[in-house]
This record gives sequence, C-alpha cells and structure tokens, in this order.
Amino acid sequence: MSQAKWIWNDGDFETYHYMLLSCRRQEFECDYPCLWPLSRPSVSASFKKHVEIPKDTVIHAVTHSSKGLLLFNDMKCPMNRDVPIAAGSYEVVAVLYDLTAFPTFFLDHEYLKTDESWLADARDGRYRPAGCRAEYASAGDDPAVFPFVYETVEPVEKSERNGGILYDFGREWFGPVSVEKAEEGEEILLCYGESEQEALDTEHALLRETLAGDFPCLRPSRAFRWIFVKSNRGRAVSITASYEFLPIEDKARFSCDDPQIETIWQLCSHTFHLNSREFYLDGIKRDRWVWSGDAYQSFMVNRYLYFEPDIIRRTITALLGKPPYHLHVNTINDYSAFLILSVWEYYFATGDKAFVARIWEKIKALYDFIVSRLENGYVVRRENDWIFIDWGDVDKEGTLCAEQILLWRVYQVMANLSVLMGENDLYSEKAEALRRAVYRDFWDDGRSAFIDCPDTGRRHLSRQSNILAILYDFTDEATARRIEQAVLKNEEITPISTPYFKLYELMAFCKLGNIEEMQRYITGYWGGMVRLGATSVWEQYDPADQGDAHFAMYGMKYGKSLCHAWGSGPIYLLGRYCCGVYPTDVGYQTFTVAPAPGLYQSFSAAVPIRNGVVELEYAAGRLTVKTNAEGGTLCFGGKTLALPKGEAVTVTKDGNAGGAIS
Amino acid sequence: MSQAKWIWNDGDFETYHYMLLSCRRQEFECDYPCLWPLSRPSVSASFKKHVEIPKDTVIHAVTHSSKGLLLFNDMKCPMNRDVPIAAGSYEVVAVLYDLTAFPTFFLDHEYLKTDESWLADARDGRYRPAGCRAEYASAGDDPAVFPFVYETVEPVEKSERNGGILYDFGREWFGPVSVEKAEEGEEILLCYGESEQEALDTEHALLRETLAGDFPCLRPSRAFRWIFVKSNRGRAVSITASYEFLPIEDKARFSCDDPQIETIWQLCSHTFHLNSREFYLDGIKRDRWVWSGDAYQSFMVNRYLYFEPDIIRRTITALLGKPPYHLHVNTINDYSAFLILSVWEYYFATGDKAFVARIWEKIKALYDFIVSRLENGYVVRRENDWIFIDWGDVDKEGTLCAEQILLWRVYQVMANLSVLMGENDLYSEKAEALRRAVYRDFWDDGRSAFIDCPDTGRRHLSRQSNILAILYDFTDEATARRIEQAVLKNEEITPISTPYFKLYELMAFCKLGNIEEMQRYITGYWGGMVRLGATSVWEQYDPADQGDAHFAMYGMKYGKSLCHAWGSGPIYLLGRYCCGVYPTDVGYQTFTVAPAPGLYQSFSAAVPIRNGVVELEYAAGRLTVKTNAEGGTLCFGGKTLALPKGEAVTVTKDGNAGGAIS
Repeated sequence: MSQAKWIWNDGDFETYHYMLLSCRRQEFECDYPCLWPLSRPSVSASFKKHVEIPKDTVIHAVTHSSKGLLLFNDMKCPMNRDVPIAAGSYEVVAVLYDLTAFPTFFLDHEYLKTDESWLADARDGRYRPAGCRAEYASAGDDPAVFPFVYETVEPVEKSERNGGILYDFGREWFGPVSVEKAEEGEEILLCYGESEQEALDTEHALLRETLAGDFPCLRPSRAFRWIFVKSNRGRAVSITASYEFLPIEDKARFSCDDPQIETIWQLCSHTFHLNSREFYLDGIKRDRWVWSGDAYQSFMVNRYLYFEPDIIRRTITALLGKPPYHLHVNTINDYSAFLILSVWEYYFATGDKAFVARIWEKIKALYDFIVSRLENGYVVRRENDWIFIDWGDVDKEGTLCAEQILLWRVYQVMANLSVLMGENDLYSEKAEALRRAVYRDFWDDGRSAFIDCPDTGRRHLSRQSNILAILYDFTDEATARRIEQAVLKNEEITPISTPYFKLYELMAFCKLGNIEEMQRYITGYWGGMVRLGATSVWEQYDPADQGDAHFAMYGMKYGKSLCHAWGSGPIYLLGRYCCGVYPTDVGYQTFTVAPAPGLYQSFSAAVPIRNGVVELEYAAGRLTVKTNAEGGTLCFGGKTLALPKGEAVTVTKDGNAGGAIS
Repeated sequence: MSQAKWIWNDGDFETYHYMLLSCRRQEFECDYPCLWPLSRPSVSASFKKHVEIPKDTVIHAVTHSSKGLLLFNDMKCPMNRDVPIAAGSYEVVAVLYDLTAFPTFFLDHEYLKTDESWLADARDGRYRPAGCRAEYASAGDDPAVFPFVYETVEPVEKSERNGGILYDFGREWFGPVSVEKAEEGEEILLCYGESEQEALDTEHALLRETLAGDFPCLRPSRAFRWIFVKSNRGRAVSITASYEFLPIEDKARFSCDDPQIETIWQLCSHTFHLNSREFYLDGIKRDRWVWSGDAYQSFMVNRYLYFEPDIIRRTITALLGKPPYHLHVNTINDYSAFLILSVWEYYFATGDKAFVARIWEKIKALYDFIVSRLENGYVVRRENDWIFIDWGDVDKEGTLCAEQILLWRVYQVMANLSVLMGENDLYSEKAEALRRAVYRDFWDDGRSAFIDCPDTGRRHLSRQSNILAILYDFTDEATARRIEQAVLKNEEITPISTPYFKLYELMAFCKLGNIEEMQRYITGYWGGMVRLGATSVWEQYDPADQGDAHFAMYGMKYGKSLCHAWGSGPIYLLGRYCCGVYPTDVGYQTFTVAPAPGLYQSFSAAVPIRNGVVELEYAAGRLTVKTNAEGGTLCFGGKTLALPKGEAVTVTKDGNAGGAIS
C-alpha cells in the first residue's frame, strides 16, 4: 500500500495558496489587494473509496480546521476520534467543510489510507481523483501551510548607520525576519532594501514597518539584501533572517571560455529560485503576484533549469481560477492567450494528458471568453481590457497585430488540445481564416513587415508583432528572413527595453541561426547588471541610467524590482540554442541535440529533459554528448546521429563523428 | 446626506451567511456538511465614488477583518487610521480583501459616507451599487455577525429527572444556551428536545453534547422546548436560554367563530417566525438548511403574514449561489424550477425590478442548466438529480408529469422576466410546444387525469401532478373540474401526507371554489397537532400514529422536525382564499379583495399587501373592508366595488353594499 497523504478536492490546494499569495502585497505600510478577482477553495467536499476491512479494528481520521464526518456504509463516525469498525466491506465516504482553509483530512490505517486512489468532489457530484502531495504525509502536517524550507542567512556585514544598524546579507534573499525581545514600550523600525540606498531611505523604501508591542516576533517573508534596523531607544537591535524556499535542485549547468557567462548563469538561477515559490512570481519585492505572460517564460526556464512539472501545474491551475470569466487573466488580453499556450507547451514537454483533462473545461471556458470579445474576428481592446504585449514603443491604440498572432496560435493550440481530448477540432479553420485576414490587413509588403495597427493610420512598425510572427511560425522562413532584415536588424526600429520581450527577440534571432547576437547580448546586457553589483536580475535595465536612477520605476524611487523572474531567460537561451536541446515529440519521446557554440570556443553544460539529462562538452571544435534517456538525435557539424542511451558520442565541428565512448 | 452604513460587494453578505448557516448542522455529535456545493463570498472588492471635499479635513475609514487601502485620486491611504485629505475633487476608490469573512468597510464623515450610492465590484470590473443594510450603521458594527435580537426565555418548569434537571421552556424556541461556571474537571451533559421524550433520551436525542473545560460557556443556537442538564458531579447545573430572532412584526391576524382557528393561526405564526432567519429554514432542529421548494411556500406565507421582501431577496440570492451550476438547486430538479418561479412571484408582489436585474444573469444560467439536461424536451432524472415533488405515492421511475408542468411554468416565467429585462422572449413558443407534448403523452382522457409517467407502463395517477396542472393554469377550467372529480375528490387516489403538498392541494380546492375543504382540513389536520400539545407545526403528521411514533422520521427515533416552516400554510390559505386578498397587477398597484367565509359564521382579519394592509370584519352575513392603499377592488356577494383608500366599505352577503363608513 502507498504512503498515506492528506487529501483534498483537486485544485483546492492551489486555489487556497494562490488566494493567500495574492493578498500579501504591502507598500508603504498599506495592504494592496491584487488587481483581478480571486477564487476561493471549495467550502465543502466529499471523498469516497471502497474498502475491505478484514477484521474488527479502530480507525482514527484527522482534520485540523475542517469539520465533518466519515460514513462507513451510512454509519456516521466523527473525525479526530477513535472509531471501532467491524470487519466487512464498506463504501467509505468522508464529508467535510472548512470555513477558514479548505476541506482536507488524513487517515493512516493498515486497511485504509488516504491517498490519490480516493475520489473527491466539491459536493457537486463531479468526482475526480483526490488532490494530495508527498509533503503532507503525517497527521501533524497541515496542507494550509505551504511546505517551504528555511535556512538561516548570516549577514556578511553589520554597520552602524543613521542611529541604527544596517545588515548586509551579501546577496538577494527572500524570507522572514525575527526580531529579538525588546524593552517595554520600545518601537523598532525595520526597513528592507534590495539596494543599500533603499534600506537606508526610510521615507521612500517600499517595505518598512514600525513594530511595537509583542516581541520577539517573526515578520512576514519579504525580499531583502539589506535590512536597516533602528530602535527608538537607540539600542542595537538584533535580528535573524531566514531564506524561505523550495528545495528544487538544478539539473542544468553552463560554463564556457568566457567566465562571466557562468556568473550570469548563476545570477539567473538564483533569481529564478527566489521566484519559484507556491507559483511563479514576477518578482519577489513588489507585487509578488502571478502573471501569466511572465509565468509563460518561467515555464520555459523551468524546463531548461530543473524540469519540475509540479510548479507549472500549480501555476496554471492558480491562474485559471474558476469560471465564469469576466476579465482576462491578470486583466491582460495577451496573458489569457499565453495561459492557453502554456498548457500545450506543458503537455508537449511532459506528456501529462491527465493534467490537461483536469483543466480542459476551464481552458474551454477561457477560450470562449476570449472569443466572446472578438470584433470582426480580431482581438480588440474592450472595457477593462489591458493590451500589454510589452512596455515600449508599440502602437496599442487600434487593433494590434501581436494580439492577432497570439489568437492565431491559441486557435492552433485549441485544435491540438481538442484532438488530444478526443473532441472535434473546431479551431483549425479559424486559424487559417485569421492568418489570411492578418496578411490582408497587417502585412506591408513594401516594408517587409507587419504593421502594428491598420486602423490608427500610423502604420507603425514595432519589433514585438514581428518577433511573434517569426517565433510561432506565423510566417514561412523566407518571410521571416525578410522581417529579420527589415525589422530585427533595423536600428531605426525602437529597441526592446525589457528582458521580457528581449527573450523573444533573442529567440527569434537564434531561430534564424544567429546565436551570436544572443551571446553578445547576454554578455552586454546581463553582464552590465553584474558589473553594477547585481546579485539577481532586474525587472528592467537601461545601461544609460546612472546611479539611483537604476532603482526607480512606476514613479517610485525604488519601484523597480531587482529580482525579476523574467530576467532568467539566458538559462533558456543557452540550453535551447547554444546546447540545442529540444523535444521533437510529446514528452521528449524523441528529442534533438543540435548545439551551436557560436562565439564560445568551449563550453560545458547539462540540460535537463523529461526523465533525464543531456551532458555536453565542447572544446577545440570537438563536441561530446551523453544522455541517460532514449530517443535522442545529435545534429552537429552537418551530421545527424542517434544518441544511444548512456553512451557518450563525440563529433567534430567539421562533421567527423568521433564514435561512441563507453 | 443619508446615514453611513457598512458597504460590501452586493451578494457577499448573503453568500457569507448562507455558507455559515449551511455548515451548522450537527447530529449525534457529528458535524454534518450540507448536501450541495456552497459558494464563498468575494475575496477582494473595490468600491468607488466621486466626492467634493470643500475644505481640508481628516478621514478615518474602518474595517475589521478586511485589509486594504483607500485611494484619493491615487493617493494611498491606509484603513483604520486618521488620514489628512486636502480640499479638492476626488475619485475615491477603496480596495479591500478579506480572508475570513468578506470585504467591507465603513466611513462616516461629514463629506463622505459609505452607503448604497457607492459602486462596488469583486475586482472583475462589473460595478453595481454596493450592498449595505440599515442594521450596520456604526463603526462598531460587524456585517459578519448577523443582526439577530436576543431575549431571555424563562423556563415554565424545572424538575429533577434521571439525576439531572429537565427544563421546560413552555413552547418551541431557538437560541443559544449559556451554562454557568462549573467545578474544576466537571462534565456537563446538555440534551435538547423538541419533545420531553427526546430531551430525556440521551441516547437517541439528535442534539446532545457533553461539555468539559471552559465554563461559563455559550452554546451555539439550537431548537428546543425541553433541555435536560446533568453534571457528572450530581450537582444541579443552572442554564440560561435565549430566543434568537429577527424582530419582524406580523401585519396579519385572523380569528373567527371557531376559536381553535386562532390558536392554529398563532401556532403557524410562531413556527414561521422561528424559521424566518438569515434565510428561510425548512425546520429549526435538524438540517436547518435552506430548501428552495420549502422556501417557495415560505415566500407565500411571508406575503400573507408580514410582507417583508428582504428575507425573500436574501433567500433567493443565497439559493442562486454562483454559476456555473453543475447540480440542481438543493440537488432537486423541481427545486430549481421553484427558484425561478419564486423570482417572478417576488417581482409580481413587489414590483422590485432592480432585484431581478441584479440576479438576472444567474437566473439565465440556472435556466440554461435546466435546459441542458432535458431529453426530448422533457425533464428526466440524470446523474445526481433528485426528482422530489413530494414524499408519497408518485411514480418517479420515469419521465414525471409534475416536472414537465413546472418546466412549462419556468418557460412562462422566463418569458415574463425576459420581457421585463428588455430582452427577446425565447421561451413562450417552448412553453406552448411543451404543453402540446404533455397533453399528447401524459393526458389520459378516459380517466380525466394526467398520469405520472408514460414510460414506466404503470400509468399511475397521483394527486401531485394533477394539482400542479390546476394551480398553474396548465389546464383550462373545464379540464380542471374534471380533474377535481377524477383525482382530488377520488378517495382511491393516495392522499397527500405532507403539509408541503397539502398546501398545494388545498389551494387547488380553493381555486375551484371549495374553500370549505380547506377550512375542514385546517381544523382536522392542524388542529390535530394542537390537540397533541404541539407548540409549533410539524414536518409531517399522521393522525393514525400513536405516542412516540409521532416523533420518528428518516429512520431516527426523534428524526421528525416538530417546527417546520412548510406547516405554516394556513396563514396563506386563510389570507388568500378566506379573506380573498391578492394582487391583480405588479406590486399590488391593483388588487382584489374577494372574501369567502365558507364555514365561518364570522371572522376578523388583517391581510398585508405591499405598502399597506386590508382589514376585514365579517359577521352575520355582513362584511366590512378597509384598506390604507389605493387600487383595491372588493368582490363579495355578487358585487364588485372599488375600495377607496382609508374608507371602510360594507357589503352584505346577498350583494347589498352597505356604503362607505368614514
């Protein structure tokens, strides 16, 4: 028999923790609820399973905040008590409600254990396998508490400043701070900084608080590198900081002959782990909300850093929430599209059809919502819509090309998913009709580019719309190459200013074979932050900024997030394009390894795949690849070779296979 | 300026209190969650209003469990603190979340008060007037606490029994019991009884509890007439019981030459008040849930007892919950139909179009759910459906006639409501098609009756299907009279056994002019309970039962509810048919008073109408009617007279108008 685990109605765990997470933003001592509606978990749930009890026994089911009863063939048994059960054959039903968290219980008995073999519903008759997690496997566990791990972080420096003490923890962290016992009536100021300037600027720092009353105390988890502590008694107050995290191990690594690349890669990895929490955060300091477009990129980095499907499932489940939908995901039209795209990409990487089945009804509801708001078949801005695409020079006043390309891709993904779910493909024809319309209305053949909007009269060209056209194969290759010249390599087109869309641009370059552009950019842009002392990747970075201007954003002196998940793109870029690892069939049943060293004379890397890893060593034109998975094909130096599981294969740049090495 | 009131997103108050109420059932010391899914209130909400602040001032907004901030033209202001505001013109937005109850706040300032003039949403952009209630009008109030009123109930007798004390509170009550300070380690048993037998039967009583630890203590509100209290120390323990209620005053009264009728009427009124709570309960002892079909009858009694629209709105709002719907209301097909019927009857009695507009989207979602489960246009039992109609001899195995008649009425009501909401009538044609089909498949012309099911082969006749056909004018009058003879007056057809459907049967008799049948039944059936010492009306009553058998139901020795709302029908029957008061246009803009004394030689009554009351005195063939409302028409003794507002009109049984008396 399997290990007993706490069980709940599938989805409640994610819904509950997403609700909590979305309500934690604080700024300038105000609570700041998130911008979009949140769902709550089920009030009540039933659980059922058939069991044979071979001899008389006593069972004891455990709940914490849930209340309810167990029915053994209609015999009512209270929770949290020993209940005698006679030998026999039973339909066991548990019915629980929970007014503060979500209904969940635990039963660990020789003859009957709670686990995923139970069925659960929200009292709506729609039974599905119960939700559970390996972390909640004993009676004392509580699924309402997220299973983070804590490690004390030691300061690298403590210095007296402005009548208080400035703690420097050496690099960016996220976690709770505990404050020691204080004197009667003492007031203690805590001021958190991602920069030293912010920690010392008690007026403009986003996260500051004055504590009075109950000491010692543990403060909510927050982002910090520096913390300034000051008592109204002039006393030196001692604090202890912890790092709160999920113990996910990297499966990837990357280093090359340019040593700063490994530094950048580690910066990206640290940034990414700090944002890999209940769900993928955008950044750890400011809103700490979950944004679908940001998460879409995090899913990409996930697969190339640690390949951990569960956090992707959690994030998709949280973002889908519960229909009916009255607003786009995160209020953003493009983010609804990215969420649907995420589902297909998740499935293609993992082969996890069961997850798609669990959320399929919600995906269709979200799709229906998207379609219900089209005008003449196009995505337009309706009331409460936010056409985001990117911060930057995009003409969003009219019907925007980038949104239509995402819609076209949504149609394709819905076609794929509907076939997977055994339903009719109602989407492919719509995709084709939309493609024709977009070429008719947005393509400017004279300028070899898609214009942003046909209806504002400006015929503005942006990189963003054209990048998406290349990335999603909305164009054929010849057209893509025309766009590359006319837009991507055209310095008159406003450059991308966010790491977010810069990732897409660099992907487009790589897709067209220009990985050197990607490599140069990593060294210049990400390396620029490293040279400024960054210990995590920033939300935005303009090399032209000076001093504290680097910290400002959204009209706030320290408004910029200095640890933003979307800055972790180099992990994806190097794994996907420099190492050249990608699946060619669902769940990496087959996959390709097509390395492109580009500017690097040598590199050493590991890239995770589903249920395995690909190890690469390249130096002096000689590449060695080894994988512990079946289905791989190596493409290098003009040669294509099968990659035998567990055997290293060496190929030279000029195409000579070096043969398998045991 | 109006009175400041706590405000919330419309519907949250009902959703929250409905959730709490539905999770209070306890039996034999088990918590017993309700059978259907429950909704939770909004996690977060925004509130907005434009305000002119004529001079610099300080505002202070109050919340309890909610957190968030106020924005004055984007200036962030914390809650629960004094905030200086400069003179000026402001868009004020409050954004709140609440993890334990629902987002709500209070602001009472000379220049800015929270009230229904604010708009609110659940962060979904769908702003509507904020919800509020007159009971929550000061900073110390808390909308998470329902505004019940409490009065101490004195026992009429305390007697030593079985080593403890039996308290007799004289009649049925509902409320909390407080237990005095106990000795260290003392355990106190409380056993609640609607009957003396139940209170003393500590093994089989549904509500018993053993208290240990914290004393004095206040127990959750429960139903009782008797309470048995016993200490393990053999000590005489003192308890104090309270009546928890809503202070709704009766506007109706009824007495006649048969004195037991007033006793029955008072019994019905007391029963009804005990069940008039956050929402209409079915009964106060056992499940204490809200059942749509039961509530439908309570709405009828409401209008003829105290005409209080708010509890009807609350109950409809609670029962509608939040789409999408995956189960019928209370899991019962007919109860979904009754909920839709309730909305039209509420509107017709009150003219409250604004309420219909607030719930219209949900009504359509419920209608869509009903229609999505039809088979060949008929209501059938699908998975998780409960075809209830009535406890009794109804052939529910196949496609049931009574369900189709309710569906037909749903189409009619949807037609009325859609026209009211300015939408196209997509329903009337469906109603007509369904009527033709039902006559084709269910009408047995030889037996002058609708059969229950055409597809079970039994061709069973029940009263229930035929009663609904008469009540909702599914038949013409001539057909109704054939059914009356063939079914209603046919002793071979199994009689109705519940007060629930008995109400419909008596209404059908009255509709066909036979009010004597109704009067005889009240005296016999309801009078029978009175003669057995009932102080409230029972869920079911069989005169043939003996002794404790009266208390048993659902396989439990004391399973029967002895205070069941659906027993209050005589209030409706006497007001509607004996006094003959009913609206003939929306909101009683016009109404008829057509008394039918029947068996009574004299009666004195008052019947509420919207914004008024009709007073009736009848004796010795002489009727005097007076109303404080306009629009009335008196029909009596073959005459039809306008009822002038505020003037008594007297008519004799033979049709002579006695003339207006000032």
